[in-house]
Amino acid sequence: MWRDLTPIGRSASSGGYFRQPWHPAELELRAWFREAATARGLEVEEDPFGNLVAWWGPAAEFASTGKVLTGSHLDSVLDGGAYDGPLGVVSSFAALDLMRERGVEPTRRLGVAAFVEEEGSRFGRACLGSRLAVGATKWSDAAELTDRDGVRLGDVIEGGESTMLDGVATYVELHVEQGRGLIDLDAPVGVHDGIWPHGRYRYDIAGRADHAGTTRMEDRVDPMLTYAMTALAANKQARLQGQRATFGRIDVRPNGTNAVPSHVTAWLDARAESDAALVSLVSEIERQATERAGRDGTTVTVTAESVSGEVAFDPALRDELAGLLGGVPILPTQAGHDAGILQDAGIPTAMLFVRNPSGVSHSPYESAETADCLAGVEALADALTGLVAGEVAK
Amino acid sequence: MWRDLTPIGRSASSGGYFRQPWHPAELELRAWFREAATARGLEVEEDPFGNLVAWWGPAAEFASTGKVLTGSHLDSVLDGGAYDGPLGVVSSFAALDLMRERGVEPTRRLGVAAFVEEEGSRFGRACLGSRLAVGATKWSDAAELTDRDGVRLGDVIEGGESTMLDGVATYVELHVEQGRGLIDLDAPVGVHDGIWPHGRYRYDIAGRADHAGTTRMEDRVDPMLTYAMTALAANKQARLQGQRATFGRIDVRPNGTNAVPSHVTAWLDARAESDAALVSLVSEIERQATERAGRDGTTVTVTAESVSGEVAFDPALRDELAGLLGGVPILPTQAGHDAGILQDAGIPTAMLFVRNPSGVSHSPYESAETADCLAGVEALADALTGLVAGEVAK
Repeated sequence: MWRDLTPIGRSASSGGYFRQPWHPAELELRAWFREAATARGLEVEEDPFGNLVAWWGPAAEFASTGKVLTGSHLDSVLDGGAYDGPLGVVSSFAALDLMRERGVEPTRRLGVAAFVEEEGSRFGRACLGSRLAVGATKWSDAAELTDRDGVRLGDVIEGGESTMLDGVATYVELHVEQGRGLIDLDAPVGVHDGIWPHGRYRYDIAGRADHAGTTRMEDRVDPMLTYAMTALAANKQARLQGQRATFGRIDVRPNGTNAVPSHVTAWLDARAESDAALVSLVSEIERQATERAGRDGTTVTVTAESVSGEVAFDPALRDELAGLLGGVPILPTQAGHDAGILQDAGIPTAMLFVRNPSGVSHSPYESAETADCLAGVEALADALTGLVAGEVAK
Repeated sequence: MWRDLTPIGRSASSGGYFRQPWHPAELELRAWFREAATARGLEVEEDPFGNLVAWWGPAAEFASTGKVLTGSHLDSVLDGGAYDGPLGVVSSFAALDLMRERGVEPTRRLGVAAFVEEEGSRFGRACLGSRLAVGATKWSDAAELTDRDGVRLGDVIEGGESTMLDGVATYVELHVEQGRGLIDLDAPVGVHDGIWPHGRYRYDIAGRADHAGTTRMEDRVDPMLTYAMTALAANKQARLQGQRATFGRIDVRPNGTNAVPSHVTAWLDARAESDAALVSLVSEIERQATERAGRDGTTVTVTAESVSGEVAFDPALRDELAGLLGGVPILPTQAGHDAGILQDAGIPTAMLFVRNPSGVSHSPYESAETADCLAGVEALADALTGLVAGEVAK
């Protein structure tokens, strides 16, 4: 399976992946998903937002409640790694194969899901597919989102109402680790207990376009200076407070070499260990930006594009899985996941994660050893077996 | 004439102009140029690089040497003003009209020129048309330049050898002022005596892509931080040294909100009152960037994309014109112009400039009062009359 996916959407220059929703690479992955499901005799359901589920066993054999869902996502960030998302989907199919080999007889329906636009790399909202599926984001709002080419989401898909989560009692997502936790603990697999609160904040900094040569330094109103100080301040505050803050995206107008910019728009990604710590971090960065803007003569407007509170995965499920897997490490994650959206929507959720020897993520350097991936599949199969064959009390 | 040009290539949102070479708005301006020339019975010559000249009187009536050229350019920076370039071309036609009304009998051939890609906003080389016309840039090099969409200049025009400057003994360019000199001196028109040295330097800063949430601050190799410090250092050094330095253009990869960037490319525009001052400014900025890169773990590579030395316009011509115009102010400019390229190529050159009450340039806010523009036309007509009818000894 893994070999089929390797070339899709990969950049020849960086080795990174470009798998934005409904662009050719991602459409190819969706076709692969349908083939993988059909080859296993699974029934494919696509909801009106493009989320996919492959169900094991015909619905008639099982109750319409108590379903178990696993899976992840297929899309990538711009120039991302191979594992973030696809490892969870591939491992889910592999775990299902392993369960069948072992003769597991499910008493609950099991679905392999691929949520759409998890990274928010095209329409700017992370976990958009799962947010729409649970109803946390309204379709009427999402339909108006546009990508960088000005394409409206409402012109890409029809939308409507999703029933894919009806009767789902448990969700388990496997993901490649996005940090160094399992490296430091020398363990191939772990369980996440929660997700740090995080938010995306758009900084619109307005100045005045001017000639880069003829305008005296003291006559300028240059938003690039306000931006530069804000990017450094964000980094410093995150270090001081032990949290995370990043400016990784910027849009400059007119973006000409010989013009002082008129506008800089930049996006702050901030994460912290608690909701209060996030508020403290974000407000300090905004305070310093505003103070600098006062000195530069620019104006700063900060818009919170999305803020997710702290997520605590179901503690009983977490402890049962960790026990079932022989006491694997339990750690939080700073990354958003569809699992967090489902947990917030009241579906008991757990996350398994597989060691990433590079420690890096959202990067072509992201990696995972084959032995660790197989350990992940084993762990996922064990966990799902417990859930669908009644060994785990859910 | 001015009314014909006002709507072409103007953005409805900013009011600024987007007139990049061989894009629709600029093609429309070229068509306008040909119409304006034809309506006046002028003979239009287009060289293989797209530079245009409208000649007064058939070649046969005049010697093939001692020609006088005036004009400017029609292209704009991205989101630029209405006057930068077109004012010189329109004023040249208007001055020619005025000379005819006054019954001036030229003894030399007079041409109105529109040089192409003066701003370098499409192919990244300022004064590209005049550089090609004088041979300062080779066509074989220029043909390989690409725009932001990856289009090669060699696929847009055929190139070849320009003869438009053959026999040209003098060039006079009128331009809107790009600073506050004439405001402070309360004068409608002035004469430039030279152009500050300036250069464009590309900063390629390489780091390592990573997840914006899960990567600890201390594990990052973030090129945005190196960039931000460099942008602030450039501004500070320019202030301290009394020169000009601007970072107005940036290209971030992958430019995703939730990814630490892998690369930042940014362009430094630097200008100084002497060649030595420019070297001092640019080397201090590079030194600080490299020092910061050492702390960030990033690497910085600086490439000088274009560097122009100090230009001194022909002093005799400058003094004659300033005298002829009643002792108007004489000031240097920090902006590059085709006039500088022609002067460097050994053609005695002068520049007139018209007051800009906003003081700003490369901006939709650039402006000029009608009375000052008319004063500019009068001054240009007087200067050209002196040159083509023998009153100025050139």
